[in-house]
Amino acid sequence: MNAKKISALLLAAAMMVPCAVPARVLAAEEAGQEASQETEAKTPKYIFLFIGDGMSYPQIQTTNYYLNAIEDDGDDILTSESRLNMMKFPVAGSAQTYDSTSFCPDSASTATSISTGHKTYSGTINMDEKMETAYETIAEKLKKQLGYKVGILSTVNLNHATPAAFYAHQASRNSYYEIGQEMIASEFDYFAGGGLKKTTGDEGDKTDLYQLAQEAGYKVVKTQEEAEALTAEDGKTIVIDETLADDDAMSYDMDREEGEWGLADYVEKGIEVLNNDTGFFMMVEGGKIDWACHANDAAATITDTVAMDQAVGKAVEFYNEHPDETLILVTGDHETGGLTIGFAGTDYDTFLENISSQKISYAKFDSDYVAGYKENKTDFDTVMADITELFGLEAPSGESETTNQADSKDVHPEGEEGGSLVMTDYEYNKLKAAYEETMSRTGEEEAFGQEEYLLYGSYEPLTVTITHILNNKSGINFASYAHTGLPVEVFAMGAEQEQFEGYYDNTDIYNKLAAITGVQ
Amino acid sequence: MNAKKISALLLAAAMMVPCAVPARVLAAEEAGQEASQETEAKTPKYIFLFIGDGMSYPQIQTTNYYLNAIEDDGDDILTSESRLNMMKFPVAGSAQTYDSTSFCPDSASTATSISTGHKTYSGTINMDEKMETAYETIAEKLKKQLGYKVGILSTVNLNHATPAAFYAHQASRNSYYEIGQEMIASEFDYFAGGGLKKTTGDEGDKTDLYQLAQEAGYKVVKTQEEAEALTAEDGKTIVIDETLADDDAMSYDMDREEGEWGLADYVEKGIEVLNNDTGFFMMVEGGKIDWACHANDAAATITDTVAMDQAVGKAVEFYNEHPDETLILVTGDHETGGLTIGFAGTDYDTFLENISSQKISYAKFDSDYVAGYKENKTDFDTVMADITELFGLEAPSGESETTNQADSKDVHPEGEEGGSLVMTDYEYNKLKAAYEETMSRTGEEEAFGQEEYLLYGSYEPLTVTITHILNNKSGINFASYAHTGLPVEVFAMGAEQEQFEGYYDNTDIYNKLAAITGVQ
Repeated sequence: MNAKKISALLLAAAMMVPCAVPARVLAAEEAGQEASQETEAKTPKYIFLFIGDGMSYPQIQTTNYYLNAIEDDGDDILTSESRLNMMKFPVAGSAQTYDSTSFCPDSASTATSISTGHKTYSGTINMDEKMETAYETIAEKLKKQLGYKVGILSTVNLNHATPAAFYAHQASRNSYYEIGQEMIASEFDYFAGGGLKKTTGDEGDKTDLYQLAQEAGYKVVKTQEEAEALTAEDGKTIVIDETLADDDAMSYDMDREEGEWGLADYVEKGIEVLNNDTGFFMMVEGGKIDWACHANDAAATITDTVAMDQAVGKAVEFYNEHPDETLILVTGDHETGGLTIGFAGTDYDTFLENISSQKISYAKFDSDYVAGYKENKTDFDTVMADITELFGLEAPSGESETTNQADSKDVHPEGEEGGSLVMTDYEYNKLKAAYEETMSRTGEEEAFGQEEYLLYGSYEPLTVTITHILNNKSGINFASYAHTGLPVEVFAMGAEQEQFEGYYDNTDIYNKLAAITGVQ
Repeated sequence: MNAKKISALLLAAAMMVPCAVPARVLAAEEAGQEASQETEAKTPKYIFLFIGDGMSYPQIQTTNYYLNAIEDDGDDILTSESRLNMMKFPVAGSAQTYDSTSFCPDSASTATSISTGHKTYSGTINMDEKMETAYETIAEKLKKQLGYKVGILSTVNLNHATPAAFYAHQASRNSYYEIGQEMIASEFDYFAGGGLKKTTGDEGDKTDLYQLAQEAGYKVVKTQEEAEALTAEDGKTIVIDETLADDDAMSYDMDREEGEWGLADYVEKGIEVLNNDTGFFMMVEGGKIDWACHANDAAATITDTVAMDQAVGKAVEFYNEHPDETLILVTGDHETGGLTIGFAGTDYDTFLENISSQKISYAKFDSDYVAGYKENKTDFDTVMADITELFGLEAPSGESETTNQADSKDVHPEGEEGGSLVMTDYEYNKLKAAYEETMSRTGEEEAFGQEEYLLYGSYEPLTVTITHILNNKSGINFASYAHTGLPVEVFAMGAEQEQFEGYYDNTDIYNKLAAITGVQ
């Protein structure tokens, strides 16, 4: 047998996916005799649902191509391996994401679809479009009907839309205090991640949510030392990350200090405290992938996607010990930012390795640098030196004065530069204009003009222009500061994985989970 | 049993996908005893491979959402059905597309991967990276080893990269004449679509390819009447569309006259002439999806995607008559244009129905209108009247003079306009600048400047600015004039469909086809 034949054989063997088995709900009372010989279906006892907020095909593929680009062996033949845990899962389906409001849906409504199997309006959590009926979530059902322990983890605030969609029922995702109250009432076993928003309500006059949680029997810990010490014996716990960053979320992974816990650590701890003979359900949100995409920060997008994938790796380790009883799903709720691997200025080339020049997230640059620039009226040359150090971008050689954009006609298309981080005059002028805009803003601006909004969204002009230029010089682009309408990937591994093949609606993620677990 | 229970049951039943059966190659000599009970595997006798050039997730989802948007019932709750044949296929996998040159690959190399299972450099057709070894294609193997008849169809030139990748072997896709010679030498049974390029070679001194084809026994027809009259008795045929448009390709579907044959008609005729008891393989390329995306023309992208889907519908009709013996695959070779459903200017809204205001493709507007504008030095107001009629865009109300872009600050962000086709001053000024640029170009320009290339690519500035504005006002955007790095969908229906589930490399499309047909 020649090598080609052997590899054809190996391929054919690899393609022999297991037989689909009917769902428990079928095998039980309804299906009757005919299905009886197929009752070997296994309800997954340990279910992990990872949701990369804003993570669709572009985020995953960009991250994987980036990881390959920085490991490039330098020869002339480009290759690419699947370097993410999720990409190695045996099953990969696809889910469409529109909600009752828009083809560019919201996190509250999409998480509602995943969690309950219903579409609803953007901004709404587990309520119907009339705001009358509250939908019970898959997490609530698994707890009540099967006695599973439940864990809810997020890199952003634990009463933010996506985690909320597994325990709360609110017409508006902005009812943070009420969502926090529902979180406490859920009696779920393990919450971990970013700090709660509006802990004393919109007016600051309500009892602190953490106090309410403790009164309801939750152990609330806010230091890493306490988090590390947690065991299953501690009972219901709420773990707030010790080193909160922008908007009380966990740090972007690229800003994380040595030794500071990341999402993977909280998943590992979650497995430890939730593991029990009846079963558990753990929802883990990589919430800052979305925030990074909103801000058009490709480096933070990639590093937070990697961080979520490392958390997936912890679930894979658990799966390896309990392969017949574990199901791991990894999906997104929608795409954010309209990220593309390709940009007009770089044509058929990408220079993804350029992204590694960025050393700090847009948010940390805003807080640790730009705030000071504004206060101290820092001059552009000083700012430019920071930009070179932190983002790799360099001023045009032999050129420090602003030139008119009309002069840019003699600049070669960017693609011909071979990925240099030296800015063209055109780029340098955009950056300088953004610097002027940032320095002149008082924080009391009225609505932005159309061109201004296209350039900067509602972000700090200097910062978003830096990431735009770096992204574009890397061969990628963001088209929007909001969500977009791409379908999302649904990776599955473990018990009943084959149910998640194919193209379907995001409501079917719930439907499939309910069918294979038998909850109603 | 309540309605909810019934629907859960129906869902569970729908999820019972058939057992995967091992490939013929396994069932035969290699697999031995253990596999003997699974030898019911059926080699598909009739194989359709549809390739939407440049068609990935964004093109398909935009088309489907557009079809839903124009059928919107006007109530407050947005819904979306799968209105494309391909989206109703039972299997949907995903293939990554990078080639040996770039993460933003080329049609020659990606079609080589699909056709032969090998990666190669951008621009190369079925040759290895050293340009030494020629790879035999799946079409050649099915013909030689199994005696299948072969049909190759494309809306673009029949010696263009994608169709060529099923019969030719050339270091460069630009060797059109040599590719044409290989097309004739292939002895494939049915070629249909756009006209051959360079029929007398680069220097115009070679024997005409059509003459060579006739000498080799091909019946060459160039009128629709002759095409309609073709039967299997005519033997090997080359059918060139009677109404050739830009670059001798078939018309964009939106420009097609009443009664003029489209891709679906050529597929229907192909089925008629190829159908035989041994089997056939038919590759059908929707080649102008790619061309429309390069030009950032969303309307032409959508209508040509629909046209290819209608051609898929013809294959589905055939499948319905031969369900056990037919396999239909629908995929893309790469994404083109970096299309996003979402744009910074429209935030979370889309207004896809706006796209129906476009009545003519960019290419036909260039040839039938812009060429005349340049020749006759047509004034802007006259041009603007055509733009309103053909693309729906209207000048700002109470505004006919150019205003300075700095004034655009008082314009509300576009999203607040509710999808109006009345341009803002900012958009109108961009359009007017593009008109001036188009009118001033002599055709002898040197390389474009960076800003100019970002704005217009290598397209007619006026035309591409019209489609950019219309796209953006519809809530979508193109990021590039080239190909991008997104994976592509692989829809499958019929015999051995389940082999195409999951996420894999585009080379595996060949590997899977070879394994299930047993060719080596």
